[in-house]
Amino acid sequence: MTSSQPPASGAVHPLDRDGLRDRVNAALTAFMDRQGAVLAEVGEGMVPVTAALRDFMLDGGKRLRPGFCYWGWRGAGGADEGETGEAAIRAATSLELLQASALIHDDLMDSSDTRRGKPAVHKRFEALHARSAWRGDGTGFGAAAALLLGDLCLTWSDEMFSGSGVEPAALAAAKPLFDVMRTEVMAGQYLDVLEQAMGGGSVDRSRRVIRFKSAKYTIERPLHVGAALAGGGPDLLAAYSAYGLPLGEAFQLRDDVLGVFGDPAETGKPAGDDLREGKRTVLLALAAERGSRAQVRMLDDLVGDPRLDDAGVKDLRGVIEETGALTEVEAMIGALTARALAALDAAPVTEDARAVLRGLVDAATVRTV
Amino acid sequence: MTSSQPPASGAVHPLDRDGLRDRVNAALTAFMDRQGAVLAEVGEGMVPVTAALRDFMLDGGKRLRPGFCYWGWRGAGGADEGETGEAAIRAATSLELLQASALIHDDLMDSSDTRRGKPAVHKRFEALHARSAWRGDGTGFGAAAALLLGDLCLTWSDEMFSGSGVEPAALAAAKPLFDVMRTEVMAGQYLDVLEQAMGGGSVDRSRRVIRFKSAKYTIERPLHVGAALAGGGPDLLAAYSAYGLPLGEAFQLRDDVLGVFGDPAETGKPAGDDLREGKRTVLLALAAERGSRAQVRMLDDLVGDPRLDDAGVKDLRGVIEETGALTEVEAMIGALTARALAALDAAPVTEDARAVLRGLVDAATVRTV
Repeated sequence: MTSSQPPASGAVHPLDRDGLRDRVNAALTAFMDRQGAVLAEVGEGMVPVTAALRDFMLDGGKRLRPGFCYWGWRGAGGADEGETGEAAIRAATSLELLQASALIHDDLMDSSDTRRGKPAVHKRFEALHARSAWRGDGTGFGAAAALLLGDLCLTWSDEMFSGSGVEPAALAAAKPLFDVMRTEVMAGQYLDVLEQAMGGGSVDRSRRVIRFKSAKYTIERPLHVGAALAGGGPDLLAAYSAYGLPLGEAFQLRDDVLGVFGDPAETGKPAGDDLREGKRTVLLALAAERGSRAQVRMLDDLVGDPRLDDAGVKDLRGVIEETGALTEVEAMIGALTARALAALDAAPVTEDARAVLRGLVDAATVRTV
Repeated sequence: MTSSQPPASGAVHPLDRDGLRDRVNAALTAFMDRQGAVLAEVGEGMVPVTAALRDFMLDGGKRLRPGFCYWGWRGAGGADEGETGEAAIRAATSLELLQASALIHDDLMDSSDTRRGKPAVHKRFEALHARSAWRGDGTGFGAAAALLLGDLCLTWSDEMFSGSGVEPAALAAAKPLFDVMRTEVMAGQYLDVLEQAMGGGSVDRSRRVIRFKSAKYTIERPLHVGAALAGGGPDLLAAYSAYGLPLGEAFQLRDDVLGVFGDPAETGKPAGDDLREGKRTVLLALAAERGSRAQVRMLDDLVGDPRLDDAGVKDLRGVIEETGALTEVEAMIGALTARALAALDAAPVTEDARAVLRGLVDAATVRTV
């Protein structure tokens, strides 16, 4: 229905081209309505679960992964017409449920209190426990609820994908890529937790975590899934890797910079939250490699301290800037972005997809949130 | 290959008929080998993850859910021959990965230290953290690992089901039942957690938890999935419900009795673990309804006390017996079992399946572990 439109003008966010985000939100709304009915059958006690998941799914999120999946499909020649287009939108949208599961479980593991400026799911249920004056440990109740709600989103992701209405042969071709994406992101998250436990992460080890936890999961695999849904072959998958892996790494490096230097009003996270959590990033690994003895001691003392205050955040920002780590990460982001763009120029994709995927490079790497 | 064999003699456990458990274990081994290779690609740090999941999947488990799924399929006329049979075994085996995910996450939520007489997954990774002298909070590391390993098993369950090799039309017929089973078990677990938080659970509310968390999940839905894999229609599904729901409730009531009165040497759990956790069971709801004021006070004081010792366990057992709750639960198990057997007699299933499903009634309700 829309593949004949001209390339997006500069004014439209690439993820809004062809009304994509509205269509993703509509598909999610319809799916959540259906699941709400299933949960209502189980009992009245499920009402807060349904409400929390609707709010979480429909109240924000950039829809990056559905976007890459959809444009991976369009780039492979997928024709966005009638029911075929809607089925592809549903398949792409299922990645947003996978992401919701990862975020809900991540916030629980990291004890992050907020997500997109609102209470994280485990905090929301902890508050419900307090408000209802229930017995026992409210923190434990919140944790159990977040564990189960994340599990629900995880199963719903594959339910939405498998039930998308995409024709069986295309679905069967894409499912193994969908599957490996899920294993990779969970393995990448384990490596991330392991890095934090092992400490003293090298730049190389931090980049490996990024590769699996972010680059493959956020960009390369969604493109692959989309390509396979449209019958794309090995050449196209390879081209999407050549574009997606450097872009995905750049995306995560930008995220890491925002986690330290971002404006809380825009990110919805307290300033320096990544520092307080002790997240092992390339930014910090570089600062530790480059720092003087005093600077390294300050990193060791302050990074991962849950009581880190604004003054401490300011001190750590100073170290990261003075060691040149920030400049170097910005240079890496620039070089990776250039590689992604060069790969995109050479990729065997439709021209409308090339234009949007070019716009998504900026959206992923030049951003404040 | 085996459908022409005579009904099982009394000596063979019904789940071992036609070598079922060996075949389930072989299918799991092959699947875990494949996933181990995927994890090895991610990095050396994944070695303990692969080892823990192999041990968990292959070191025990009654294989009840694959058993009911397989016999649901055979009962609908599924012919266990050649590749068709192996594909059905793989589809049925996928339920064991769902169960593994539920157990790993359950043990984490309940802070249960052991499973089948060995350390629970979160304790295993907590011990790895201590042994490796890693930094930070070992309990948090163990919890994060168990969360992610449970997530892996959850995604692998559907990967194994969808990739079982069952032909696409049969798979598409069974997938919605597989999906609703997953939503129901998670919703049931949430209701269970909610009951514990709300306290003072009635017998009715406890039975609702059982229905969703256990009866549907352990017996009814696995039978339905199996039936749909063989093209079974609504009459067969209804017959399986009439057999499976009462049997599933009886199964859980037996579990609850064992959780209080079971022999730790057989159950692999410390004596009275359910009492220490404060699990809301029909057994306890009945004891509270029937008890004198002093008995109810003892239940309120001791149930859910994590420091409950052997003397406390003995006291609580006394209350449960003296109030008549134990006798009544045994009577309920008997009545439910009779209903299941009557429904089975009338069910439109193959005779070999009827014989095994009859044997499974005993296996589920007359047991010590």
